[in-house]
Amino acid sequence: MKSRNVLYAQSGGVTAVINATAAGVIEAGRKSSKIDKILAAKNGILGALKEELIDTNSESKKEISNLKYTPGGVFGSCRYKLQDPKKDQSEYQRLMDVFIAHNIGYFLYNGGGDSQDTADKIATYANKKGIPVQCIGIPKTIDNDIPFTDNCPGFGSVAKYIAISTKEAGLDVASMAETSTKVFILEVMGRHAGWIAAAGGLASVEKGDPPHLILFPEIPFNEKRMIVKVRKTVKSLGYCVIVVSEGIQDRQGNFLADTDTKDAFGHKQLGGVAPQIASIINSSLGYKCHWAVSDYLQRSARHIASQTDLKQAYAVGESAIKLALAGENAVMLTIKRQKTKSYSWMIDKVALSRVANQEKKMPRSYITKDGFGITGLCRNYLSPLIQGEAYPPYKNGLPVTASLKNKPVEKKLKKFKFPKK
Amino acid sequence: MKSRNVLYAQSGGVTAVINATAAGVIEAGRKSSKIDKILAAKNGILGALKEELIDTNSESKKEISNLKYTPGGVFGSCRYKLQDPKKDQSEYQRLMDVFIAHNIGYFLYNGGGDSQDTADKIATYANKKGIPVQCIGIPKTIDNDIPFTDNCPGFGSVAKYIAISTKEAGLDVASMAETSTKVFILEVMGRHAGWIAAAGGLASVEKGDPPHLILFPEIPFNEKRMIVKVRKTVKSLGYCVIVVSEGIQDRQGNFLADTDTKDAFGHKQLGGVAPQIASIINSSLGYKCHWAVSDYLQRSARHIASQTDLKQAYAVGESAIKLALAGENAVMLTIKRQKTKSYSWMIDKVALSRVANQEKKMPRSYITKDGFGITGLCRNYLSPLIQGEAYPPYKNGLPVTASLKNKPVEKKLKKFKFPKK
Repeated sequence: MKSRNVLYAQSGGVTAVINATAAGVIEAGRKSSKIDKILAAKNGILGALKEELIDTNSESKKEISNLKYTPGGVFGSCRYKLQDPKKDQSEYQRLMDVFIAHNIGYFLYNGGGDSQDTADKIATYANKKGIPVQCIGIPKTIDNDIPFTDNCPGFGSVAKYIAISTKEAGLDVASMAETSTKVFILEVMGRHAGWIAAAGGLASVEKGDPPHLILFPEIPFNEKRMIVKVRKTVKSLGYCVIVVSEGIQDRQGNFLADTDTKDAFGHKQLGGVAPQIASIINSSLGYKCHWAVSDYLQRSARHIASQTDLKQAYAVGESAIKLALAGENAVMLTIKRQKTKSYSWMIDKVALSRVANQEKKMPRSYITKDGFGITGLCRNYLSPLIQGEAYPPYKNGLPVTASLKNKPVEKKLKKFKFPKK
Repeated sequence: MKSRNVLYAQSGGVTAVINATAAGVIEAGRKSSKIDKILAAKNGILGALKEELIDTNSESKKEISNLKYTPGGVFGSCRYKLQDPKKDQSEYQRLMDVFIAHNIGYFLYNGGGDSQDTADKIATYANKKGIPVQCIGIPKTIDNDIPFTDNCPGFGSVAKYIAISTKEAGLDVASMAETSTKVFILEVMGRHAGWIAAAGGLASVEKGDPPHLILFPEIPFNEKRMIVKVRKTVKSLGYCVIVVSEGIQDRQGNFLADTDTKDAFGHKQLGGVAPQIASIINSSLGYKCHWAVSDYLQRSARHIASQTDLKQAYAVGESAIKLALAGENAVMLTIKRQKTKSYSWMIDKVALSRVANQEKKMPRSYITKDGFGITGLCRNYLSPLIQGEAYPPYKNGLPVTASLKNKPVEKKLKKFKFPKK
């Protein structure tokens, strides 16, 4: 078999460990004689369409290894939705042109649910047109909402950050509550799924430990019940810590944090629910509230990444190359939890067509009856994912990160004219 | 000399390392035969007034050592302002009664500028009344605004957290900017002083590195100039990272983040300026903005505390005992920077009367001419303070923290009737 090139692209919101996946792809790819070059698309699928490709072969071994310590998406990522192929196929055809022009035999797409859908559509189109490119989806999302995988690389590190931050801030508030702040509210990401909020619950090891309330997107927000619980908590413990998901909704499904901005997929841009909760509590109960919105800090906090998450993120990258070389197509890698006492896992796969456009939310059995906490079942699921501290090296008090050249590949095609949307 | 007791109290906003100071006090105090018991006031000065004292002698060596890893204030802290002794001396007299009843020879008060003022007033009163108690102030504040000390224990760790978070979030935004967020805003604490905001500037090592703008309380906020700079940055780099201090003010000295809530010292409760800046930029330039408010997370982030800060926090605690035993009174410990190439420091002291009620703000020479960055001089000052990573031990993916019994000391006095305020 003639050696062919790999095209790797990062998609959607980045994570603390998506570059570890890139390192897995590149380091595994470099070992195979069947692979010539490993190219990366600049800014995700947009770079593939624009023929803006990066030659990773020009990067040193050391810098590729440094990717394991580097948060963000080192080749750039994007939120861009391809046209519905039933309406306009020009983008799909363009991708085929780029694949052929650059001898791409393997297209590895590293993203969340939307991106797996895109990968599926590209695979279907290539198959229909007889283009010999294998499409492999690599899971990644802090939201942990992709089905068929035990968890999603990127999630474990956010989970660890949020659990630690909840514990730390909880100790802070507890010590000040007598004369100052009585309620602390931490807003976390996760969109429609409460996985990240649930991770805050790991901070609570003994009875009375914070957080005392978790507000999940899966449970319709009930102001009255929240106020009753907050009052009760402050009366008994002197303070109250709340972890709130950015995606909490009322009974009608309206987001509390609606900012009226939408991304390319039509998803509403969320954020800012913590000050709303603070305002509700302050005006109802008169308690002094403090709130934090960790926003990008939580998903880029490579300094306290989970060792388990890092290993899995690397493994899905490495395995994507293995599957590609084994002839697999139109599949997404998954992490399969082994049913052993101590957590162990293996890499598996699932057809892309089965994954597309589904959101895996928290099962009701993971949420306590009152809707404000996590169950033992949930704790058993989450706890292994935050194990181990994958510290980066430091220089001058700051974490070391990769510094890539990102050398562009010479273009061979005409400029692409994007379809009107 | 008959052995006497120590009373240690934590005051004001807590830090990631104030408990390391407590460990320094207790471990040094336990070594001296001149000291019988080390008592701690529950919830700071409030506990001293209420005669709510904690006997630290009942804590194990191990748990006291664990204090070095524990953020928050383990004995409780408070924001409580004593009456002006010119108007009402009842609180000062009560403290003397408590000191005498519990054989307190040494009162160690661990706090910021307001607390040093309180310590000074107590020392003055005791002296006037001939009560043989030595008052030692121990500096602590994340705001780094106490004069006469090179820096304040607690600050180095926040500085490290903010520098790292700025670097990490900067990598995140840079990778998404093509199709999504172009401007990221991180709000930090620091009140009227820009030290914490300045620490964000340490993330910028090479030209173009984030943060691209720092908004200091020392520089009156100028909306137009900010917009020009943000536009220019996004045009040239594709994205822009802003670190904004909670304490920024307009030319008239009004806080942008005024929430109309005040603490016991009449300080306005700040917070929430980041969404305001985001709104200004979004409406002026149309850029998608994301913002984070790290609030208590920054000052409780013991998981990434600065080793330098931890050492200094411990040293001021340990030295407080040494000074007390050496007969010092009405002094505050300071950190003195040694003028050597590699950073070294020693513990020194200053009269409490000189410290009281001053705020050390950023000198103009530490801020770049355009008002949006830090100078080399500032970098040289700040950089040593974030050196070293003082990682806590972990158990089950979470940091280990101390778990004290906080055994109450039997009361000997009548209940105190607080003066009306």
